[in-house]
Amino acid sequence: MTFTVKALQKTGPDAPFEVRTIERRDPRPDDVVIAIKAAGICHSDIHTIRQEWGPVTYPLAVGHEIAGVVEAVGSGVTAFAVGDRVGVGCLVNSCGECAECLDDQEQSCLNGNVGTYASTDVDGTITQGGYSEKVVVNERFVVRIPDALPFDVAAPLLCAGITTYSPLARWDVAPGDKVAVLGLGGLGHMGVQIAKARGADVTVLSRSLKKEQAALELGADRVLATSEEGFFAAHKREFDLILNTVSAEVNLDAYLRLLKPRGVMACVGAPPQAMSLRIGSLIGGRKVLTGSDIGGIAETQEMLDFCAQHGLAARIEKIGVDAVDDAYERVIAGDVQFRFVIDTATFADAEPVA
Amino acid sequence: MTFTVKALQKTGPDAPFEVRTIERRDPRPDDVVIAIKAAGICHSDIHTIRQEWGPVTYPLAVGHEIAGVVEAVGSGVTAFAVGDRVGVGCLVNSCGECAECLDDQEQSCLNGNVGTYASTDVDGTITQGGYSEKVVVNERFVVRIPDALPFDVAAPLLCAGITTYSPLARWDVAPGDKVAVLGLGGLGHMGVQIAKARGADVTVLSRSLKKEQAALELGADRVLATSEEGFFAAHKREFDLILNTVSAEVNLDAYLRLLKPRGVMACVGAPPQAMSLRIGSLIGGRKVLTGSDIGGIAETQEMLDFCAQHGLAARIEKIGVDAVDDAYERVIAGDVQFRFVIDTATFADAEPVA
Repeated sequence: MTFTVKALQKTGPDAPFEVRTIERRDPRPDDVVIAIKAAGICHSDIHTIRQEWGPVTYPLAVGHEIAGVVEAVGSGVTAFAVGDRVGVGCLVNSCGECAECLDDQEQSCLNGNVGTYASTDVDGTITQGGYSEKVVVNERFVVRIPDALPFDVAAPLLCAGITTYSPLARWDVAPGDKVAVLGLGGLGHMGVQIAKARGADVTVLSRSLKKEQAALELGADRVLATSEEGFFAAHKREFDLILNTVSAEVNLDAYLRLLKPRGVMACVGAPPQAMSLRIGSLIGGRKVLTGSDIGGIAETQEMLDFCAQHGLAARIEKIGVDAVDDAYERVIAGDVQFRFVIDTATFADAEPVA
Repeated sequence: MTFTVKALQKTGPDAPFEVRTIERRDPRPDDVVIAIKAAGICHSDIHTIRQEWGPVTYPLAVGHEIAGVVEAVGSGVTAFAVGDRVGVGCLVNSCGECAECLDDQEQSCLNGNVGTYASTDVDGTITQGGYSEKVVVNERFVVRIPDALPFDVAAPLLCAGITTYSPLARWDVAPGDKVAVLGLGGLGHMGVQIAKARGADVTVLSRSLKKEQAALELGADRVLATSEEGFFAAHKREFDLILNTVSAEVNLDAYLRLLKPRGVMACVGAPPQAMSLRIGSLIGGRKVLTGSDIGGIAETQEMLDFCAQHGLAARIEKIGVDAVDDAYERVIAGDVQFRFVIDTATFADAEPVA
């Protein structure tokens, strides 16, 4: 059985968003029904629904930065109760049995996980994301949002937060480490805060100094303009870790020279084009070039608890369901500090077109 | 003060090797004088003395895989005594004070280390390598060769051994891990043995199956031909670690697909040209692409002890000082199983040309 809720969908890559009625499944024994309070807008949403990452099935609601309140639970759910403050990120299911799932790495499930939107769900339907009034999710993929975190500033943590937290944790960023965050957008602004909370000395690397004030307010120790003459020579072997949040081509060899021996460049943005790399840039000083994609569910919970404990949250601009088309244009133009979040209360006054 | 010994030098990149007389410094208080018994021929020797890696000063003796016996020690040396079996690898000095030296990573000395040949030594002279009767080396850069290891099969361990041991240790190759060794030359043949001794399941990846028998004799569990149709698809996500010993361009994205999630591709061969890499190949499964260059002195000693304990050594072809030009041609042609080692006893009958 199903029930209906309002969702913000596109019917095609170039169609505007429309408020439409969608079906959500009645909770299975292991499902949690979540009344969504806030849904972040991630650049991945835009790539996906515009089919820039491949074909999708329309109508589609995207959104994988979801914060809300438990409205109902399936008969077998014991970990969550009605009224709990919860979140859902990029995943809503995985096999639970492979080596990766057993090691709390559901994002790398060897049998293929189920994404929060545009994926084929366990019942064969196409998952519909968080730009919606409610969502029904397997309890294993639901995390708790600590009371200290308001829903709107917590929502972006479910993707932007975990995506930056995970590599900083994996590579053990510790007090005194010199961390560079390349790019100061939705991901970078969380990376700066988390690296700083871990005790690192944090430098934001940006083409210009335009975002200097914002970076300092987020806790960065300094901002350096990479376009400045002699920048790469002046900062040779300076950093223990570079968190690259830029989804565009960069000169990998030049950035690797900024690392100390045994330094790590962790990339969380994936440009579509291939880049050029000299293996010699990794051999001298035995450096590490790696990537990272979100994080497992247990680590997502750890990240939320860490953010609550350290008073970290996303810096957001809150919008109604009628402003999402405009918000997309501004995200693409880089004109947001630092995340748009949809206030799902605005669904109340919206008349569905279908 | 100095003393003279015979050495095998080239007077120019295209000149043949000649036995010539060179000067070695009298031991300083912290120096060890080593009577060389065996000197391995590394591909780096060839690149260097042919100026393929940049200009060098001639006449030059190369060789950084040195095994021999202590013949004299400086007044302050307490760690070594006359008659000790010792080795010297790629380094003969470093600052000893920087963060890397203090962390036993002399190969990454921030103030620039001194290479065993073609480097400017602490006294301003150009270092002359192991193709020689004797060498004088600061005691900090001398390691002990366990009695179980004959000099000739120990010499190549000082470069080929440590170069492969270090990444396998750093990335913690353990029993049950699936390790692929790409390329079966001087480096690869040590990588296979060391990975196997660490308990890994070892696969040799080679263009063809030509070296299958040799690989199996070294302990490999199997050999796979990378040129076989469908190879990359058939072995997707199979390995925990790929040790890439090939100094030529490879399809990085294709090899990264052979790794399990969180797998590591460690490169110890540096082709001169840049390669193409999609960052997405690292993000999905958060894989690691890294390089490694030899290892520190403490780890070199650890490697020698490990090899002695596990009965590992280089497989070599022993030659006299008159056969090195021919040996170089055969190394370039890949026609050696797996290392040429110069028997320095053959200096005795050679008349120096200068």
